[in-house]
Amino acid sequence: MEFMTGVNQKDTLEISEILAGDLEGKTVKVRGAVHTIRDMGDVAFIVLRKREGLMQCVYEAGVSAFDLKDVKEAATVEVKGVVGKEDRAPNGFEVRIQTISILSEPAEAMPLQISKWKLNTSLEAKLNNRAVSLRNVRERAKFKIQEAVVKGFRDFLYKEGFTEIHTPKIGAKGAEGGANIFKLEYFHRPAILEQSPQFYKQMMVGVFDRVFETAPVFRAEKHNTKRHLNEYTSLDFEMGYIDSFEDIMAMETGFLQYTVNLLKTEYAKELNILKIELPNVDQIPCVRFDEAKQKVSEKYNRQIRNPYDLEPEEEHLIGQYFKEECGADFVFVTHYPSKKRPFYAMDDPADETYTLSFDLLFKGMEITTGGQRIHDYQMLLDKIEKRGMTTEGMDHYLSAFKFGMPPHGGLGIGLERLTMQLIGEENVRETTLFPRDLSRLEP
Amino acid sequence: MEFMTGVNQKDTLEISEILAGDLEGKTVKVRGAVHTIRDMGDVAFIVLRKREGLMQCVYEAGVSAFDLKDVKEAATVEVKGVVGKEDRAPNGFEVRIQTISILSEPAEAMPLQISKWKLNTSLEAKLNNRAVSLRNVRERAKFKIQEAVVKGFRDFLYKEGFTEIHTPKIGAKGAEGGANIFKLEYFHRPAILEQSPQFYKQMMVGVFDRVFETAPVFRAEKHNTKRHLNEYTSLDFEMGYIDSFEDIMAMETGFLQYTVNLLKTEYAKELNILKIELPNVDQIPCVRFDEAKQKVSEKYNRQIRNPYDLEPEEEHLIGQYFKEECGADFVFVTHYPSKKRPFYAMDDPADETYTLSFDLLFKGMEITTGGQRIHDYQMLLDKIEKRGMTTEGMDHYLSAFKFGMPPHGGLGIGLERLTMQLIGEENVRETTLFPRDLSRLEP
Repeated sequence: MEFMTGVNQKDTLEISEILAGDLEGKTVKVRGAVHTIRDMGDVAFIVLRKREGLMQCVYEAGVSAFDLKDVKEAATVEVKGVVGKEDRAPNGFEVRIQTISILSEPAEAMPLQISKWKLNTSLEAKLNNRAVSLRNVRERAKFKIQEAVVKGFRDFLYKEGFTEIHTPKIGAKGAEGGANIFKLEYFHRPAILEQSPQFYKQMMVGVFDRVFETAPVFRAEKHNTKRHLNEYTSLDFEMGYIDSFEDIMAMETGFLQYTVNLLKTEYAKELNILKIELPNVDQIPCVRFDEAKQKVSEKYNRQIRNPYDLEPEEEHLIGQYFKEECGADFVFVTHYPSKKRPFYAMDDPADETYTLSFDLLFKGMEITTGGQRIHDYQMLLDKIEKRGMTTEGMDHYLSAFKFGMPPHGGLGIGLERLTMQLIGEENVRETTLFPRDLSRLEP
Repeated sequence: MEFMTGVNQKDTLEISEILAGDLEGKTVKVRGAVHTIRDMGDVAFIVLRKREGLMQCVYEAGVSAFDLKDVKEAATVEVKGVVGKEDRAPNGFEVRIQTISILSEPAEAMPLQISKWKLNTSLEAKLNNRAVSLRNVRERAKFKIQEAVVKGFRDFLYKEGFTEIHTPKIGAKGAEGGANIFKLEYFHRPAILEQSPQFYKQMMVGVFDRVFETAPVFRAEKHNTKRHLNEYTSLDFEMGYIDSFEDIMAMETGFLQYTVNLLKTEYAKELNILKIELPNVDQIPCVRFDEAKQKVSEKYNRQIRNPYDLEPEEEHLIGQYFKEECGADFVFVTHYPSKKRPFYAMDDPADETYTLSFDLLFKGMEITTGGQRIHDYQMLLDKIEKRGMTTEGMDHYLSAFKFGMPPHGGLGIGLERLTMQLIGEENVRETTLFPRDLSRLEP
């Protein structure tokens, strides 16, 4: 009988294995995709794309035992050759090819020049050729940065005693919102796609005290902007036994500090490829919503049109203000007006026009909304009634409160937006593998 | 100006902090939910539920400075008291209460006796009262086991050079399947919910070589069984440059070994609560599909009705066979018939009736489907044609192959099923926070 006993050991090497070993002058086997071929006549550079980066392989007429014409760009190959030091090659080494075998071949020539350092093409073209455009080294590096953000979020929260949860994305009714919800038929019953795990994560605070989820959310908003998506990955956490909503902002600050450090230590290669300058997250300034509006109005000579809302332009100026005044890339804007927050937001007992809530702006763009929630059953019922809402469809949610809930709060972070701002992109679609927007449902 | 500088340090302690410190005789502050109160007259035990477990706090008339009647079950409280050794208490200590303050109170008495060790109620009642039933210590422990499985999957795959991806759940068309797909309207266009990240993860193999995703999938199957859900969490990976589909089975074996070890080292508490005996994953037997049917037919005197399909009863007997013959809880069943596999499955060149694919059975239940995929563009087109399918809606998927793809394969694991089998539950809803099935859309 045959048995599986664990990961198969391979005799083909990755870049890090060659760098770690003392392999100069040694014969190795490597596999990869032919990223580009530079034919200089008697010598040719066959650059392989591997998961850890590019690797220069050298064909020499008379030495390498194959015909260069048999190797096509975008083929995948196995190369056998000798490792040599070469300062001008990626990672400081090259492989002088003895033999090559073709593992697979493309059917057509590439539609985009992915081997150029910077893909010289429109966002539309990149998205329309997603399977190909992401093979560009800079394009794919963006999604390693995104990986680091998610990894940082989870690892940090595990460390802080949070439990990971998985809540359903198909639900019975959109208690929280109205028009901005995708509807579907679920075995002859009306159903919706969840726009947030809000209700579920709150219910789970009563179980695990601290919970998080990293999962897709769905918003049927008819925005067609550079910062909106109709499906995105939301990094959510919710924590019980807080003293104030500042505990949540402090926890988010801890996450950012952890993640910036993770990027520095484990993603230095991608930071370098994308020339990312990491933001300073040692201390993040906090400002009240009304004060922020006032400051921006005064400094930039701008009239306050609506005292209860922040326009995107104002967000941008708040970011600019704190960059200029204290060199900060991030700023917590606190105490949002009650009328702009959902019913479950805890009003400020000192002035119920405002809530114990916040947004986090990063380079002038909102990447997080969070705050303290109402935990008292009666207070929740009163707020629902005061808003002219009904409790229909909220029985399960409300039952968590009826049977006791600790003081708690939490937040949601838009992963693609945070990645966009970290990298310094102008459009959130640049940092989304397969974006969904008003016009885009494919690929 | 106020600044956030990182996680707020608290003067309230968690169970592990009390166990780690030398705190006997010291005064501490703790917070938690009142799990149960046992009133013995002059003494009462107020057991707190905290995220790390239960903590016994002791009220003594004349010593504790409050009236016991003011403390209700399901309230959340802050206790100040002195740590004392007490072998009969959970974790071997108790807190002798000096003062208590109420953080929140329930509005009604509990509908379920969650403080019983084993919730003595039906699955229906548990699901109907999910926010409350999960507060039972055994019920919530199941989802820590589930957390370990997901954590193990990710950590192991990161270590093996995989990149985490996030692919869209709303798509344009169900190229892979037909009737079993949820449909929705997407800004006046027909759309579907993805039943698998299959196409996307394959496309990403051309970019990152190795990718994984942990995300919800949606299946509109009209099964009403103990092992089917209409929404579940799928652990997916896909890897390039494989030598054969056995590389995938070997990688899954590595994941199981890693996760069993993670459970032993970091989740011992939950293993103990649930009395879980971990399976042996040192070696996992492999058997061909046709041989497995033959063996089971002979040993259990059972006629083979359909040579191209496995009935649930047969799966169960295959599990039983390998448990009896070699003490194995897991078995890889390989070479499934081509007609039972999707078009992208690689047929076995030795006999095209079968594929280079596998299922993994755990205690007689399928928890994984995987295999090698076709990587050659023309072979893929031929297979599509041979099946009488069209390439409509598959342009983006096919373009990945047109422009070159390495030999590759992958798998998908049903998280809730794997958790169910690990714990030894009979119904997959027991290991799903908020199950979605034919009749259940709430909570």
